[in-house]
Amino acid sequence: MHQRLDPLRCGTRYSGGVSRSILTVPVQKVDAGSSSQFQDLLAVEEPLEIRIGETTVSITMRTPGQDAELGLGFLFTEGIVASGAQIEHVECAKNAVSVRLSPGVELDLARLQRNFYTTSSCGVCGKASIEALRMQGCPVLPRESPVVSSVVIHGLPATLREDQRVFARTGGLHGAALFDSDGRLLLAREDVGRHNAVDKLIGAEFLAGHIPLSDQVLLVSGRVSFELVQKALMAGIPVLTAVGAPSSLAVETARRFNMTLLGFVRDGRFNIYSGAQRIQ
Amino acid sequence: MHQRLDPLRCGTRYSGGVSRSILTVPVQKVDAGSSSQFQDLLAVEEPLEIRIGETTVSITMRTPGQDAELGLGFLFTEGIVASGAQIEHVECAKNAVSVRLSPGVELDLARLQRNFYTTSSCGVCGKASIEALRMQGCPVLPRESPVVSSVVIHGLPATLREDQRVFARTGGLHGAALFDSDGRLLLAREDVGRHNAVDKLIGAEFLAGHIPLSDQVLLVSGRVSFELVQKALMAGIPVLTAVGAPSSLAVETARRFNMTLLGFVRDGRFNIYSGAQRIQ
Repeated sequence: MHQRLDPLRCGTRYSGGVSRSILTVPVQKVDAGSSSQFQDLLAVEEPLEIRIGETTVSITMRTPGQDAELGLGFLFTEGIVASGAQIEHVECAKNAVSVRLSPGVELDLARLQRNFYTTSSCGVCGKASIEALRMQGCPVLPRESPVVSSVVIHGLPATLREDQRVFARTGGLHGAALFDSDGRLLLAREDVGRHNAVDKLIGAEFLAGHIPLSDQVLLVSGRVSFELVQKALMAGIPVLTAVGAPSSLAVETARRFNMTLLGFVRDGRFNIYSGAQRIQ
Repeated sequence: MHQRLDPLRCGTRYSGGVSRSILTVPVQKVDAGSSSQFQDLLAVEEPLEIRIGETTVSITMRTPGQDAELGLGFLFTEGIVASGAQIEHVECAKNAVSVRLSPGVELDLARLQRNFYTTSSCGVCGKASIEALRMQGCPVLPRESPVVSSVVIHGLPATLREDQRVFARTGGLHGAALFDSDGRLLLAREDVGRHNAVDKLIGAEFLAGHIPLSDQVLLVSGRVSFELVQKALMAGIPVLTAVGAPSSLAVETARRFNMTLLGFVRDGRFNIYSGAQRIQ
């Protein structure tokens, strides 16, 4: 059923390990008037240039690691590439990921242009209306499946926290994770930008040929903006859960596309903003 | 000393009040297995188009309110306009702010182009290196003034929280505030995007002719990325304090430009990442 990118022609000249996500710096700590020196751990933030052929599509500030997944996830969730078959080659260098399209696949420059009309916290504002999502071919999700029990939902944040090692050490990273409907962790990613953490997740599944993710549950560590709902919709994710609050447009979009959207998933409670039929 | 935009020719066809920042929606609350209906308050998220003449410079997802300040703050902190004298007229319509430049002032299209190479959580990635900041004319801050006592620093978050009314009601907004060096609140703003909250603050001060803000302290409610340091630098703010953690590039940039950067300002403690000479 799933179309896998096989073989995935992903050359890597530069391979970043977990250690590139953290930087140690000397810091002065002030606590109730007293002061001491210690070595603090910082989440690394560096620019990543995402290229298609000779064209720079985007430069995003991200935490190094999983650059190919981030680049592909971005290109897919922004509607710039539609399937693995459109991609011939992916190559990662330091702070750049280059994608070569398959012969005959044309880059939609007009769409790129729209994506350039964007700024912070919004990779999608050029098409920043719900109608635009529809025009982009974002399908309305099937109303029912999967069904997830509230007990499973309550348990998701603890599972993500256990996995989110860099966050625990720096306090500076957003986390995102994919679960199956029984609450089993499938994949988790971290980044200084929450949209990047989600792009890394979706990019990994895109690489594995698993799109659409019709039976998966996405958890994000922070708040939910329109952008995150849009990215989840592009990947066909039916259940989006967040530790923080959703925005008005996030809720409106989720309702329009039959997505289940849960907020404030913490301390044994949550709010259902949309799609209650999937929660048991 | 300060050059005020006087008279400020800011026509407003659409004036958004506080109530436009919040939307009420019916929500199902699940708590320890029991479920109930209630009316939840959401932070409103809508696109704002920022135009110079006929050119769309950016579309950002923001919380409505203070659109002129947001637009001007964005244009100034991104280096697209340099002073109030360059601006002839500002007009706000629903979800759009239009700026007309003064006669003889040319729009730097090449710079705009660079700004288009950006994505989420990063309005500045097109010039995403410290060197680029320097080339943009970002001055290195004077090393000493102002001096701020640690007692003042400890008190900043509580002052912001008291003022941040929408956040208290929705949990969905980032806050940012400017203080004088004695900890007196000068101005506070909220937004779904933390960069927008900072742009609104700096835009307001730009409108008032108060740039550079050489004796002010900026507090942000979340984490500190490179982008926020860059925006504060453009406005000449010497002390940037945050409730959350900074990224590696935020710290590196602050050190290079002599900015005082404090993180984890909460619960009676904070960390000094840069510029300890300004903390007493």
